[in-house]
Amino acid sequence: MVRVVQKFGGTSVGDPDRIRTVADHVARCQRRGMQVILVVSAMGKETDDLLRMASAVSKIRPGREMDMLITAGERKACALLCMALADLGVDAQSFTGSQAGFMTDSNHENAKILDIVPTRVEEALAAGVVPVVAGSQGVSGDRDVTFLGRGGSDTTAVALAQVLNAEMCELYTDVSGVFSADPRVVPAAQRMATITFDELLEMTATGCPKPAMRSVEVAHNYGVPLHVRSAFTWEPGTLVVRDYTEAPTKKLSAEEASMERPIIRAVTHDLSESKVTVIDVPDRPGVSAQLFRALARAEVNVDMIVQNVSEEGMTDISFTVPSEQVELTRQVLEGGVLSEIGAERVSTDGSIGRVSVVGAGMKSNPGVAATMFETLAANEINIEMISTSAIRISCVVDASRAEEAVQYLHTAFGLDG
Amino acid sequence: MVRVVQKFGGTSVGDPDRIRTVADHVARCQRRGMQVILVVSAMGKETDDLLRMASAVSKIRPGREMDMLITAGERKACALLCMALADLGVDAQSFTGSQAGFMTDSNHENAKILDIVPTRVEEALAAGVVPVVAGSQGVSGDRDVTFLGRGGSDTTAVALAQVLNAEMCELYTDVSGVFSADPRVVPAAQRMATITFDELLEMTATGCPKPAMRSVEVAHNYGVPLHVRSAFTWEPGTLVVRDYTEAPTKKLSAEEASMERPIIRAVTHDLSESKVTVIDVPDRPGVSAQLFRALARAEVNVDMIVQNVSEEGMTDISFTVPSEQVELTRQVLEGGVLSEIGAERVSTDGSIGRVSVVGAGMKSNPGVAATMFETLAANEINIEMISTSAIRISCVVDASRAEEAVQYLHTAFGLDG
Repeated sequence: MVRVVQKFGGTSVGDPDRIRTVADHVARCQRRGMQVILVVSAMGKETDDLLRMASAVSKIRPGREMDMLITAGERKACALLCMALADLGVDAQSFTGSQAGFMTDSNHENAKILDIVPTRVEEALAAGVVPVVAGSQGVSGDRDVTFLGRGGSDTTAVALAQVLNAEMCELYTDVSGVFSADPRVVPAAQRMATITFDELLEMTATGCPKPAMRSVEVAHNYGVPLHVRSAFTWEPGTLVVRDYTEAPTKKLSAEEASMERPIIRAVTHDLSESKVTVIDVPDRPGVSAQLFRALARAEVNVDMIVQNVSEEGMTDISFTVPSEQVELTRQVLEGGVLSEIGAERVSTDGSIGRVSVVGAGMKSNPGVAATMFETLAANEINIEMISTSAIRISCVVDASRAEEAVQYLHTAFGLDG
Repeated sequence: MVRVVQKFGGTSVGDPDRIRTVADHVARCQRRGMQVILVVSAMGKETDDLLRMASAVSKIRPGREMDMLITAGERKACALLCMALADLGVDAQSFTGSQAGFMTDSNHENAKILDIVPTRVEEALAAGVVPVVAGSQGVSGDRDVTFLGRGGSDTTAVALAQVLNAEMCELYTDVSGVFSADPRVVPAAQRMATITFDELLEMTATGCPKPAMRSVEVAHNYGVPLHVRSAFTWEPGTLVVRDYTEAPTKKLSAEEASMERPIIRAVTHDLSESKVTVIDVPDRPGVSAQLFRALARAEVNVDMIVQNVSEEGMTDISFTVPSEQVELTRQVLEGGVLSEIGAERVSTDGSIGRVSVVGAGMKSNPGVAATMFETLAANEINIEMISTSAIRISCVVDASRAEEAVQYLHTAFGLDG
């Protein structure tokens, strides 16, 4: 019997009709001989509603109480899905994070899974009962309810698939898979039949919104095959595998199966960051360390870092941070760090966009960077910063040109469908 | 330090404003040196909303899943109240039924408390933290979430007060106390400063809607003093005591404190039942047993039973049942019981009202029944059935005359304010 973990996101269970549709899908899977374990998020916008309610009663939000509040959403969705399954003659049992054996740390609102002891889930499976597990929650060593954070249901599903030795973890969502670019920006963007973990990780880190990066990391670490697919069309989506030799041949498109696989798989973009430049920094050892240690202490989430070539013993250091952390960054720097390192001043730019091309094939194709820069230059898009990894190149450009840049690059790398 | 359990019902915490008002009240109590334990119901109409949602997804409602669903409501209210308290500088911690140590049987949707091990609640109190306990819930021996039923938060509060040796259990609700009659029917109805458990039990059994009868039973069994009061006006309400010697004198009105206490304390009425009459039953031993055993097996909730005087070896047996069980009752009787006992036929009457007078003083005042019957006769209200206990007399009358009957009796027994 094939054992599969199926995770359904908030919009997939957003109203009673959707819940009955999901139950119908699960009943069909079971009739086809699959052993299904469900993981469910809170219905629709319920988590947002609960957060709004919390703001309405208090300016203070104790983490323990926020988690008690928010986790109520997934519990309700699980119970309702079990009822809908019962209505179709499918035996099902809901489990809270605690009941499903998710032990976490006490870091409320963003807890990490320490261990999973899914005794009750396994008992249910042995009895032919479909376990329906509340996503994104667990219990701490203090026996308090914990929440794994937004998007944590994906992590719950992947971790459960690993510990239960499931053959597949299916993430059902409101997108039909992973695309070569955001289809709202590039109408010719194509859904990929397969993608590797390495590539998907670079994509999620540079703007691809689903699945949640954390779940891809967990799946990658434990080698759990992922299937990102739609809970609305039910058609096959994107299979995420360790490398292309692992992908079942029938899942690969003609191009993907050939040795001449496209070098670049996807073009991603991200408009959520701002650029910070520290101007006229003395170019001596230890200066960068001082700068970024101070930012790390203030929990500023620094992303790309670029240091210009030194001129007359002075240099500029630029980096990107989430736009909501620009003020914090400025406070940290102007509150002492600048004078400590002897730098002149700070400038910030909130209107930047980061455009990235991702593909494992670029490792053996040295021309990728050149193609990217030429494409942008030919369209008079100025590059402000560059950073690279083994399978990704990112350029920071003006925010107003970022979506155009994605379109030009998608065409230039032969990705248009 | 005075230890008090305070229970807040659904309307008391119905919106963010109300939650902040309750938090403010608790903060004031704490500043006055009280040690407060809170018990909270689900916000406003949330339980009804959840039940409607369940109906929308499924015709089947597995009890285990219903309880998982419904108990989410109290958890949310508890967490929000803790946040509102934190905002006022009061340390508070929410506890689910399970966390508060409520062990129940597995009778879902209507679970009974088997034991309470409130270790975490006591730890919170010792640490100066206000425990906020989710009402009406617990955990079964199978480690499943259980719901104590509608109105179960009162039971949670009373049971907690007993096990924690609290000096008082305050039930805050949307009525300001216990009245001598329903104030909507009798504008002259008076709030009672005190009432005994025996009298209040008879009143709740015959139509007085608050507090829930079950919580009064538990409070009575363990001798927990109750204070039924308003969460809107915050004025003192009705104190429920074992007998009037227990009541603090200052709580008694002049009349109540005097030896010449009114014989009758309250007039109650109930329009939710129907009358069933089994006609021409052979009058021989064992017939009633056969009849009511069959109804008990079908879980029909039989209330008043009246058997007419036998004529020529035949009699009629009348009883009342909740109106929603009339069809079930007819099915049970016509499905075999009638022919077994040799009875003729069944008639039912849905338009009845039950009017009761309650008061411990009637034990030593034989004229109460006569006064009641005379009052009804003088107003040409026909009595269809009569039943009595040591401190209560109930008459079944036509539903259309029931509220009038309450008004006449309230005046006749000198209860008008």
